[in-house]
Amino acid sequence: MSNYHVAVVGATGAVGQQMLKTLEERDFPIGSLKLLSSKRSAGKIISFKGKEYTVEEATPEAFEGVQIALFSAGGSVSKALAPEAVKRGAIVVDNTSAFRMDSNVPLVVPEVNEKALTNHNGIIANPNCSTIQMVVALEPIREKYGLKKVVVSTYQAVSGAGLEAIEEMKQQTKDILEGNEFTPEILPVGGDKKHYQIAFNAIPQIDLFQDNGYTFEEMKMINETKKIMEMAGLEVAATCVRLPVETGHSESVYIETEKGGATVAELKELLATAPGVTLQDDPANQVYPLASECVGKNDVFVGRIRQDLDRDNGYHMWIVSDNLLKGAAWNSVQIAESLVKLDLLS
Amino acid sequence: MSNYHVAVVGATGAVGQQMLKTLEERDFPIGSLKLLSSKRSAGKIISFKGKEYTVEEATPEAFEGVQIALFSAGGSVSKALAPEAVKRGAIVVDNTSAFRMDSNVPLVVPEVNEKALTNHNGIIANPNCSTIQMVVALEPIREKYGLKKVVVSTYQAVSGAGLEAIEEMKQQTKDILEGNEFTPEILPVGGDKKHYQIAFNAIPQIDLFQDNGYTFEEMKMINETKKIMEMAGLEVAATCVRLPVETGHSESVYIETEKGGATVAELKELLATAPGVTLQDDPANQVYPLASECVGKNDVFVGRIRQDLDRDNGYHMWIVSDNLLKGAAWNSVQIAESLVKLDLLS
Repeated sequence: MSNYHVAVVGATGAVGQQMLKTLEERDFPIGSLKLLSSKRSAGKIISFKGKEYTVEEATPEAFEGVQIALFSAGGSVSKALAPEAVKRGAIVVDNTSAFRMDSNVPLVVPEVNEKALTNHNGIIANPNCSTIQMVVALEPIREKYGLKKVVVSTYQAVSGAGLEAIEEMKQQTKDILEGNEFTPEILPVGGDKKHYQIAFNAIPQIDLFQDNGYTFEEMKMINETKKIMEMAGLEVAATCVRLPVETGHSESVYIETEKGGATVAELKELLATAPGVTLQDDPANQVYPLASECVGKNDVFVGRIRQDLDRDNGYHMWIVSDNLLKGAAWNSVQIAESLVKLDLLS
Repeated sequence: MSNYHVAVVGATGAVGQQMLKTLEERDFPIGSLKLLSSKRSAGKIISFKGKEYTVEEATPEAFEGVQIALFSAGGSVSKALAPEAVKRGAIVVDNTSAFRMDSNVPLVVPEVNEKALTNHNGIIANPNCSTIQMVVALEPIREKYGLKKVVVSTYQAVSGAGLEAIEEMKQQTKDILEGNEFTPEILPVGGDKKHYQIAFNAIPQIDLFQDNGYTFEEMKMINETKKIMEMAGLEVAATCVRLPVETGHSESVYIETEKGGATVAELKELLATAPGVTLQDDPANQVYPLASECVGKNDVFVGRIRQDLDRDNGYHMWIVSDNLLKGAAWNSVQIAESLVKLDLLS
């Protein structure tokens, strides 16, 4: 097996740090490693496998000789630099929303559509965190029983909004407990006009609003799910909500299958052996997935699987995963591993 | 207008205290007031409209002469003492689940089914908090467009589990921020075997599990909604989740109407003038209901009303209310006011 020249773009961010940790843990075959960032963070020292690396500014030239570049530094950075990396021979795995809905760009969750990688044109998109964990849980059900409708309500952690959002949540929580005044400045969306209290609250806004009343986050879940599952006609609806949780997204999901008749026991059996899934479903012993328990783990946790009481083809479930790992860093590294396995890296 | 002999049972609890506050604010026509509690809390002094009252132990004899008794001291207290109060001539408004599904007991949300009060046999049940706020928002839609299906995912506050649960959440939050060890002892359910971290988490369990995989809280929402709306055939499904929020339940609700074709603008217009509802729905200006903003207010707040993108008769919305007020104390006092208005108090 060869070793590869790897670049991580956005190495100092919340997801970038998890990417490095994951590359290390997975012992990815790295020949050389470049850590890239904005000008502001360049010069920082980061250690990887016991060796120290100086973070360099991400410029077009920095990608010379790079074979695989993992991007997680915001959509505008990806738009500007991913094509430059590709021009220089790299394959880009992009964790932003910049190229996800581009018809020339595969949108990949390896457990679901690894084969889409073979059609890549240099850029491969990593889906939105809340989408990834849902499709990992739904794919085995789709494969066996067909899938007609999905209605999801999310319970999303603040780490999806970055390190500053985590800091805001913690400081605000402290302020409320101590009776201090505070002024929300980041959440729900750094770039939006108004900011609301996240501590001890639930905010039904993630990302900006579109004209149709849905947020971009909700439309990402809707559109990306259809693209990854290659089901343009799948009915998908989402309500995305930010919670005072540091890491770990939870989802309450209602589905209708094409073929009814699957028992809850059959769905449990199916998911117990599904790739990337850990079944945690034993209500009698209060076993169900919890955000607090998923942190640092790569799998998607599924539980509370129930038959809808009215529709024979309706089911409810609770899906939890570490949004920085399977939702971002782990799925990106997993795509890189798939590229190696399928011999798609030049 | 007469003045009435009123008793509040469970006067020292989280809901009991809100009941007294609400009776005071509404200037309910009280002739005499009795504050009752368990033996343990008897003897405490509580002030009401500037006058001090000594809490007495709730015994059968304590209800002599009482015309209306507001119960909120747990199901077993209601089961034992509500019939005793009725025997002595009182009308009971019971905030526990003890009698809610009893076919001889009206289950009332005044905005929805005030007329059911006329059939009472001494006991009137106050529905579950998460059910009340949902039916207040759905009733105007049902009335105009018919209602076929409801799928709700809840985001529920810990005050629904009592004052000790609030204390546990706050202490645990402090412990996590300060890096201290802690042992969960109450939530998700005081009477269940295992207890989990509520701080910075989302727990998909409220009340105990039934054999069908649903919790009692979820089955309450399902069964009570059908009873209040007098729609045995209504499809209702619920997933109930406890959050680290002190007060204010939020709900992500998907509905299908009988008649499709209502525009979002029409639904907003309908809800803007619906009794007990405040519409907060202006996504362009980030206006939507928030748990943190509903505390201390009697209304049910509705926003984020959207057309389902696949089904013409499908809609999504976000419903928030103070679970101690409209979810409990205010709805109970409102029932008492309806009894006065309809001349049903002897």
